[in-house]
This record gives sequence, structure tokens and C-alpha cells, in this order.
Amino acid sequence: MFYFLFTLYLQKKESMESMKQRRTIRKYQPKDIPADLLNDLLETSFRASTVGNMQVYSVIVTRDADRKAKLAPAHFNQPMVQTAPVVLTFCIDLNRFSKWCRQRNAEPGYDNFEWFVTGAVDALLVAQTFCVAAEEAGLGICYLGTTTYNPQMIIETLHLPELVFPITTVTVGWPEELPEQTDRLPLEALVHNEVYRDYTPDDINRLYAHKESLPQNRQFVQENNKQTLAQVFTDIRYTKKANEAMSENLWETMKKQGF
Amino acid sequence: MFYFLFTLYLQKKESMESMKQRRTIRKYQPKDIPADLLNDLLETSFRASTVGNMQVYSVIVTRDADRKAKLAPAHFNQPMVQTAPVVLTFCIDLNRFSKWCRQRNAEPGYDNFEWFVTGAVDALLVAQTFCVAAEEAGLGICYLGTTTYNPQMIIETLHLPELVFPITTVTVGWPEELPEQTDRLPLEALVHNEVYRDYTPDDINRLYAHKESLPQNRQFVQENNKQTLAQVFTDIRYTKKANEAMSENLWETMKKQGF
Repeated sequence: MFYFLFTLYLQKKESMESMKQRRTIRKYQPKDIPADLLNDLLETSFRASTVGNMQVYSVIVTRDADRKAKLAPAHFNQPMVQTAPVVLTFCIDLNRFSKWCRQRNAEPGYDNFEWFVTGAVDALLVAQTFCVAAEEAGLGICYLGTTTYNPQMIIETLHLPELVFPITTVTVGWPEELPEQTDRLPLEALVHNEVYRDYTPDDINRLYAHKESLPQNRQFVQENNKQTLAQVFTDIRYTKKANEAMSENLWETMKKQGF
Repeated sequence: MFYFLFTLYLQKKESMESMKQRRTIRKYQPKDIPADLLNDLLETSFRASTVGNMQVYSVIVTRDADRKAKLAPAHFNQPMVQTAPVVLTFCIDLNRFSKWCRQRNAEPGYDNFEWFVTGAVDALLVAQTFCVAAEEAGLGICYLGTTTYNPQMIIETLHLPELVFPITTVTVGWPEELPEQTDRLPLEALVHNEVYRDYTPDDINRLYAHKESLPQNRQFVQENNKQTLAQVFTDIRYTKKANEAMSENLWETMKKQGF
């Protein structure tokens, strides 16, 4: 009995350890993911919490090379879309639930902003549960934040009807690399006790010091001819102008999809 | 070596199994969560993927009984808020990042809808990683979907400044119950191969048959004097009128917080 409990304890320890050691994987072996394994991982992910047990999400599985090629431009042609054996598009889905309501003499009222956000919560808890389970199974994953940049291209390629909206995309495959773990801000930067403590200039200096000191980040600043790492973000990676154009497009596409 | 690999395999198996067996826990033992364990779980959750490694989220930890009592009405006084030893409010946070930018001679442009959504993705991946890790450690969790119903009350109680927005809340504690696992729709209801296959009336009947047949759901219909389970959702739990009022409030509060 003691041995059993001790083994269980080690297992838990091990699992948490592997979550701590994770890194995003962008290079994959040219090797398929068996359908049984993928379905098992998806089924596990569907155990995630969901509002009112309504499961207002859908997952689109892309394995076909032609379909991946059509998806790629929506993701700024990031190579993972075409090199990963499987691409998963996680969608907010109020279509299935609304159809069920209408067929059962009930008038649905889920075509609004509250349910866009609620569906996003549902879909993202599923996506992340999938990723943790996939990594436990030895697979590597990469999130594509580009999903909300050109949602209309994804909607068209995947034939998403009204009240269905792509909120994130994950590429999955067997790792062909073991990159360095990226840095993270210290715990005190991210956690507030009881109430939000706003950051003083000294706090900001202290909390970002490690990130700014890293050789790869200093190189990043130099290569981009900038004075600070923050400028690489604001002037090159995510500019105010691009952010505002994307905001407008995201809002309009959301409206077009019926929310 | 074989033994080692075999043990590792069993550990992975075990961990996936526990993810499959999970259930939401709403009753907690009157027993604290040690600060070290909580910090360890939070640190693990911060390894989740994050857009451009920007970590545009914050977590507010509520342990104080008075603060919980103040939070409770925002969550329609669901008892977990006051009975759980720890309540975590996961927030979109563009405040810290924007402050860093300004202090580094960079003009941030993250006060818009695109970054509200991007921050929500970041915060929700962290929330769900926390939950999986917490459950592995033997804790029980419950998500509070009410977070986006009265966000302004949470903003006030937790002193959230501009560009910080509560997107979900999790109550955490040591389980005092082992409820039945709730049902889920079959895999084929949630997964689409290559493109979205819209649902025919027959599909809807088949996919919802199991849910509708469950004794607790039939009882639910009867207790509420309804003809169908769907009507319990549309007429009682989440009405069109309430959804629309919440949508307007959510949008206005988002704007007030500077997005």
C-alpha cells in the first residue's frame, strides 16, 4: 500500500515536472499521429470545464496537405502549418447549441458578445487541456496567435457557418527539436495578493531586468536597430497601427459571423 | 533502462487517466492551501504558451474572508467563493506591459479589442494549466462563468486599473465530495474533419439523445415545468434578454477599462 501511494506520488511529481519543463515545438518529424491517439487526446480535452455543460465549441482537424496550404496564408505562412502532421483550429460554436434549441421548441439567444466571450473561454480551456495531454503523450505543440488576425480567411477555408468563430490554432507533431526554454517574468510580476498592486517605475525595472539582460534579447534589439527591447514590440512586432486595423477587422468579422 | 521507460510510460498513462476522471469540485475541506504549493502551481501555469512571450495576464489571489465576502455578490453568491480557501481571478493585463513600454521609450498600442482577445487567450491558457496541475496535486477546482456577468463589481473589489480585466475565476480547495462525472457530447459532435460539417436535424437528434435521456436531465425539465431540456437553458438559465443585457454591460465595462 505504501509503495503504491509512493509510486502515485512520484507519478504526480513527474507529471507536474514535465509541465514545468515544457517548451513550444515548431519542428516536427515527418511522422503521422495515429487517429486513435488523436481521438483519445481530444476526448480527454473535452473533460475540461464548460459553461452550464453546454460545450459551445468545435475543433476542426486538418491533416490534408492541400487544406494546410490554404490555411497557411491566414497564419502569415508560418511553416508549422504545413510541416505539422495535424493542425487543430479551436472554434467558438454557438451554432450547434442554437440548432438544438430551435429543434426543441426553444428560442436561443446566444448571438451576442457575452456568448462570443463565453464560447472563447470554453474553447480555450479545451485547447489547453489538449496541449497538456498531448505533451504528456510525447507530442510537441505550437499555438498560432495569428488565428484572430485574419479570421475571415480561416472561416472561408474551413467552411465555418454563422455563430462559429476560430479563436486559436494549435499545430501538433512529434518533436524534431529540443529548443531552450524561454524566459518568464518572476512570480511577483504576475501574482497579486488580495488586490491589484500597480507597478512603480522601480517595480518595472526590477521585474523586466532579467528579460532585458538575456543575450538573445539584447541581440534582438541590436538586429532591429532599436534602443530598447520594448521598442522591438511596439515598432516592429505589434505596432499600434496594425493592432488597430486588426481590432476593427476582428470586430467586423465577429459581427459577420452573427455575434 | 527498460524498467525506467516502462515506469515513465505508466506515469504518463496515469496522468492522462486522471485528466479523464476529473470532475468539478464545489465542496471543500476547511483546510488551507500552503503558500509554497500554491506558488508552485502558479509557477507551473506560467509555463503555458503566451503571445510573443509577453505574458499579458495577472492573477489575483483572494484568501481573506472579508474580500471573499465582497467578491461573492459578483458571482451571484455561489457558496464556493466563500467556502474555498483560495479564489483566483485570472485577468487580461495590458497595464504592466504598457507601463514597461512607456518606461523604455516605446509607444504601446494595446488598448484595443485585438489585445483584449489576445489577453483573454493568454489568461485562459494559464488558468487551465493551473487547474490541470492543481488536480494532479489532489486539489479540486470550480470555474465561475459569472466573472464576465458583473465584471465591474470584480474590478472595484480587486482594484483593477485600466487595461486590466477579469476574464475567469477559479475556486480551489481540498475536495470534500466526489460527485458523479457529468455527461459530455460524443466526439463526433465536437470534431470536424478538414471542414465544418453542419448538423442536420437527424444529427442533432442523435448527438443530444444521450444527454436528453439522463434521469437528472429529465428531472431538471420536470422540476422547471418545461417540455424540453433546451427550454431550461433558453427560458430559465440563460435567457436572450439577460444575455443581451450582459453583452451590453460587458462591452461597456471593457471600454471603461480602456480597451
